[in-house]
Amino acid sequence: MKKWLLTAAIAASFTAQADEGMWQPHQLPAMADMLKQKGLEIDAKSISKLTEFPMNAVISLGGCTASFVSPKGLVVTNHHCAYGSIQYNSTPEKNLLKEGFLAKTYADELPATPGSRIYVTEAVTNVTDQIKSGQMAKVGNEFYKGIEQQEKALVAECEAEDGYRCQVYSFHGGLEYYLVKQMEIRDVRLAYNPAGSVGKYGGDIDNWMWPRHTGDYSFYRAYVGKDGKPADFSEDNIPYEPKSFLKVSAKGVSEGDFVMVAGYPGRTNRYRTADEVENQFEWAYPEGKVLRERLIEIIKDTAPEGSDERIKYESALAGLANYAKNFTSMIEFYGKSTMLDDRKATEQNLAKWINEDDKRVEKYGETLTQLNKLIEQSQAHQERDMILGYMGYTTMMTTASRLYRLAHEKALPDMEREPGFQQRDMTRFTSSMERIDRRYAASVDKAILFDLLKRYVALPADQRLKDFDKAFGIHKKSDDATIQKVLDKMYAKTELADKATRLAWMDKSVAEFKKSNDPFIKFAVSTYDETMARETQAKQLAGDLMKVRPQYMDAIIAYNHQLGKPVYADANSSLRVTIGNVKGYAPQDGLVAVPFTRLEGILAKDTGEDPFDAPAKQLELIKQKQYGDYYMKSIDSVPVNFLSTLDTTGGNSGSPTLNGRAELVGLLFDGVYESIIGDWGYDPQTNRSIQVDSRYMLWVMEHLDHADNLLAEMEIVK
Amino acid sequence: MKKWLLTAAIAASFTAQADEGMWQPHQLPAMADMLKQKGLEIDAKSISKLTEFPMNAVISLGGCTASFVSPKGLVVTNHHCAYGSIQYNSTPEKNLLKEGFLAKTYADELPATPGSRIYVTEAVTNVTDQIKSGQMAKVGNEFYKGIEQQEKALVAECEAEDGYRCQVYSFHGGLEYYLVKQMEIRDVRLAYNPAGSVGKYGGDIDNWMWPRHTGDYSFYRAYVGKDGKPADFSEDNIPYEPKSFLKVSAKGVSEGDFVMVAGYPGRTNRYRTADEVENQFEWAYPEGKVLRERLIEIIKDTAPEGSDERIKYESALAGLANYAKNFTSMIEFYGKSTMLDDRKATEQNLAKWINEDDKRVEKYGETLTQLNKLIEQSQAHQERDMILGYMGYTTMMTTASRLYRLAHEKALPDMEREPGFQQRDMTRFTSSMERIDRRYAASVDKAILFDLLKRYVALPADQRLKDFDKAFGIHKKSDDATIQKVLDKMYAKTELADKATRLAWMDKSVAEFKKSNDPFIKFAVSTYDETMARETQAKQLAGDLMKVRPQYMDAIIAYNHQLGKPVYADANSSLRVTIGNVKGYAPQDGLVAVPFTRLEGILAKDTGEDPFDAPAKQLELIKQKQYGDYYMKSIDSVPVNFLSTLDTTGGNSGSPTLNGRAELVGLLFDGVYESIIGDWGYDPQTNRSIQVDSRYMLWVMEHLDHADNLLAEMEIVK
Repeated sequence: MKKWLLTAAIAASFTAQADEGMWQPHQLPAMADMLKQKGLEIDAKSISKLTEFPMNAVISLGGCTASFVSPKGLVVTNHHCAYGSIQYNSTPEKNLLKEGFLAKTYADELPATPGSRIYVTEAVTNVTDQIKSGQMAKVGNEFYKGIEQQEKALVAECEAEDGYRCQVYSFHGGLEYYLVKQMEIRDVRLAYNPAGSVGKYGGDIDNWMWPRHTGDYSFYRAYVGKDGKPADFSEDNIPYEPKSFLKVSAKGVSEGDFVMVAGYPGRTNRYRTADEVENQFEWAYPEGKVLRERLIEIIKDTAPEGSDERIKYESALAGLANYAKNFTSMIEFYGKSTMLDDRKATEQNLAKWINEDDKRVEKYGETLTQLNKLIEQSQAHQERDMILGYMGYTTMMTTASRLYRLAHEKALPDMEREPGFQQRDMTRFTSSMERIDRRYAASVDKAILFDLLKRYVALPADQRLKDFDKAFGIHKKSDDATIQKVLDKMYAKTELADKATRLAWMDKSVAEFKKSNDPFIKFAVSTYDETMARETQAKQLAGDLMKVRPQYMDAIIAYNHQLGKPVYADANSSLRVTIGNVKGYAPQDGLVAVPFTRLEGILAKDTGEDPFDAPAKQLELIKQKQYGDYYMKSIDSVPVNFLSTLDTTGGNSGSPTLNGRAELVGLLFDGVYESIIGDWGYDPQTNRSIQVDSRYMLWVMEHLDHADNLLAEMEIVK
Repeated sequence: MKKWLLTAAIAASFTAQADEGMWQPHQLPAMADMLKQKGLEIDAKSISKLTEFPMNAVISLGGCTASFVSPKGLVVTNHHCAYGSIQYNSTPEKNLLKEGFLAKTYADELPATPGSRIYVTEAVTNVTDQIKSGQMAKVGNEFYKGIEQQEKALVAECEAEDGYRCQVYSFHGGLEYYLVKQMEIRDVRLAYNPAGSVGKYGGDIDNWMWPRHTGDYSFYRAYVGKDGKPADFSEDNIPYEPKSFLKVSAKGVSEGDFVMVAGYPGRTNRYRTADEVENQFEWAYPEGKVLRERLIEIIKDTAPEGSDERIKYESALAGLANYAKNFTSMIEFYGKSTMLDDRKATEQNLAKWINEDDKRVEKYGETLTQLNKLIEQSQAHQERDMILGYMGYTTMMTTASRLYRLAHEKALPDMEREPGFQQRDMTRFTSSMERIDRRYAASVDKAILFDLLKRYVALPADQRLKDFDKAFGIHKKSDDATIQKVLDKMYAKTELADKATRLAWMDKSVAEFKKSNDPFIKFAVSTYDETMARETQAKQLAGDLMKVRPQYMDAIIAYNHQLGKPVYADANSSLRVTIGNVKGYAPQDGLVAVPFTRLEGILAKDTGEDPFDAPAKQLELIKQKQYGDYYMKSIDSVPVNFLSTLDTTGGNSGSPTLNGRAELVGLLFDGVYESIIGDWGYDPQTNRSIQVDSRYMLWVMEHLDHADNLLAEMEIVK
């Protein structure tokens, strides 16, 4: 594999430069001068306060970001973030994914998919000392469990107040811990989504790509009880009145303008070791890509377009395709980058700095060696672990195992249960059991499991699991036919496809499970001990990593501190702020991506066939140059999407992109193809986020969808 | 099919605007002010004189353009124009296509492929009156033959001087005729070509594309006898000393600079009727694309990579692929354009102008109707004609037919023979018979003919040809097996694969052909009368078109004359001049193609696999930023290729691109994908030609290939 430079070396220097950095709000006041110089007009301190404007208007959907945009709880996020809810309310007869949906009154709004939540962050507290208190002498599994116990105690205390959800986030691999307290709104409704041919324009073909013309936005509304507190869905509930909301700009931004994003980025790997980088890019991504592409093929073959089964799997397909493309980019740009060599060089620089001082040697001298040893251990069965991991895409097997685990956990006092199986998790658990009806088809489930089992069977014997083999009747002479026969029987006989049956199992005891003849329950029972043993082994390793990785991060922070550079933590789904500018880039030598696309680009792309099949009315409006109030002179049209240097990743989807006055000028929904590898290192030359321009959103709402009620409800800055 | 605008309506207005126009040199003095204003520094009149600098340095290779670049007959053209000669000198053991070639002395230079010629245009004379004299009362076939007879007479007179080749070119479909007199240099040798991974970098994938990084240049040398006159190849021959040659610029051009190209563009269709446009884009291009893609498939399957057969068919493959991609683009951009509607509107405007005046009505009132009627007749058997046309890609069938035709023609006085079979054509004819040894493999020939015959058999019975059917034993029950059997027999038995046999047939009589048992000779004999009858029918139609189309062009010219606009003729392989600027464009909404690519772009594209496998040494030089004297500050590198607005087409390949002082700043070698449809209408927004930058050419010669002898020989402007 060749490793040429792309356009510049991918930054792997462990230091924040230019627009790199996903900052914790409390880090911002120290950067106030720089922020002001870049174009921030409001006080930097206000962004650090979660209970003040604008941060209290930025909310989490769990996996996506959103924001309040009216005094009546109107929430804007990406179309792809509301996808599940749109899908949930769609049928072959009335396909909201295709046709779009607009509730003209509150009463017309539709319930979001079960389990949908809106989380409003109210407090973030550094709890590092409390978490670590009394734990540091422990090692391995004991340390892991000790930390987990401390976390659970803090969460329980925090959630004592009704209507709140709390979580402890670990930063820098366990160097610091923060307790986040969020109000949990449980009645979420779909207010409006544009047609799929607007909201998903360009589909998988354009996904991660520029030029882009996607109207990736949708609207929810948050509802609470008459007392203003979170409540389960009820017709008596009333729209939630947020403490503040964002104004929406009809003027938008221009090239070079300051922009910032507040949101919940999921996961980055900017501080991983060279060994981890090598394994991930040279083994995990290539293997993962193969598996994802195969699963996509299986779903498409088994659930033909237009079938009810296909509707059930659209969401799974979108997720699989999204990351298949992501992995492809990772592999391509790693091949063109010097990332591994850079990472090795950085480790050498750090080692050199450590070796310059005896105290540093004492503190950090062995850290990287220890860390890499643990990493190597964690990779020992990675082929098997990946196949078992992808079995998570099947439903029957995982459902049975989760239900049986619940029976075990419920026998324990609540505070001793595994996270995910505590009392506080039961609503979500129930929702996940209910949701299966709209996400499961036996034909697809069986086809996926069949493919993955074949791969499992092909593993060396010493990688395979004894009880697992036995449960699926796998032996030396197993072939396609024997595996198929076992699965045919299991799927024919299981009753877990029935919602009432699944819900009933939630209340049953371990003994009752052991008596069951349901083939998937029998699978769960017979493999339970083996699974638990693997879990204990994994926690042992995780506990050790939770002691060593913070030491490594501590060294990195100390090294940078000496250079006068602040260090941001890798993304961990907690609230972050990132700042940047509206700016294009050079995707290739000889080509420049300009920062704005235009309405006319939709005409040029349109083929009349999905995913380039904009509504006829929209094409007509564009041909007639009906720009309305949203015309941008420099591009002689209405801007559709725009590029920025903002440092973002998955989880940031739906984030409000704000101008210097904290007005909403766009919704972040993607990054460009060249910046996917940015999760491992931000390159100022090529890292670009893609936003829907607020002007396009407003233009579609006014001219195409006539969402006059919502436009009247929002505060639009003209 | 949808027909949206691309970025601007494709100009179909029959008028020259901006940089549109392939001008005959004699038209230039009238445009002198505009040329000077655009940046021409030398006298516009000098460009109109074919025997003065710089025009006498611009030469034709027949199909490509080239130029003299030294006092010793050194000629520069495109790598793809010298491809046949490089291939001719290549063997699996010593593959010059792959490795490149540099003759360090005259003695090391290699003979070009047989029949290679260099044509130096010495005179262009308007002979319209002579050609038409006494012919205008004739119609159909008689008119066609009459004009042909006049042309032959003029050519014979012109070629009376030894060493010259003359040809009559028809302009505006027969409105004007020009006699072109060219010195014909018959001893052409290959002096230098870079490695294929430089000269063909990006291969078919990058063909017609931007960004581009192709070093598409090679060097020939012209040799003449000791008396300075054209002569057949001889070791005693000496390098030709041209009257002038081009200086090569090491400074190159910058964005916005004036550039011009003199060259031999092959064919454009800017004045075709709406009916012709519709048939071409909605029938001929789609069908042609299918056939070309199928033939490519057949050749690749039958002649595996690395085989001797594959080397023989590389040239055919390149031609097929080039136009398969060309047709694909034609179809795509026609679908996105309003070309047909625009053409109809233009015809309506013309009709309106004609109807405003009784004299015009009398002169042009019926012209378009008559023209379209003839066009319709010519399309009557187009499915069959296309299949028979593609049989031209086979060798045995066409060789036998040509040889038998020769026997017939040779029985006639020279001046009555069909063009191509006159005494003056015999050297070329012989070369073409010799060349077959290096371009023919029975396996491939048979596979192509088999596929095309199957398509022929599937035609409606009334489209098929009686004698042709009989010759291939085609009957009602013909199927794949019977066709295959016939072909197996024919190819097993024919002796035309033997060079001596082919050459011997050139001297035989019709009677001797009739006695032959060679299956392909028998085919030629038995289908001769039928073929001749079809030819006469075609000439009848062509004769009528040669009377009506000039009337139509006359109307267009008169219409534009009134608007004060000059009209250039469609390209017809005669010498033209086009002017423009160095300029990028927007290939898509949201993307800008900048006018220069850089050396570093090669690093970024390189995968190590063909066609992105630059020589290791080159990659090393780039990584070390060894720019030498060819550094361009604005791009911080050496420029590789650049874009211009020049109006060019196939045949312009190899043309010297000149700056305002007529120094060579690049070699034109391609157009961008969006401008392929430009053959039917120039769009100033997207029509861009692609040039190799002279600085890249010199950089490769100096730093990579050490062609010091050639660099010393040329006059380089620093």
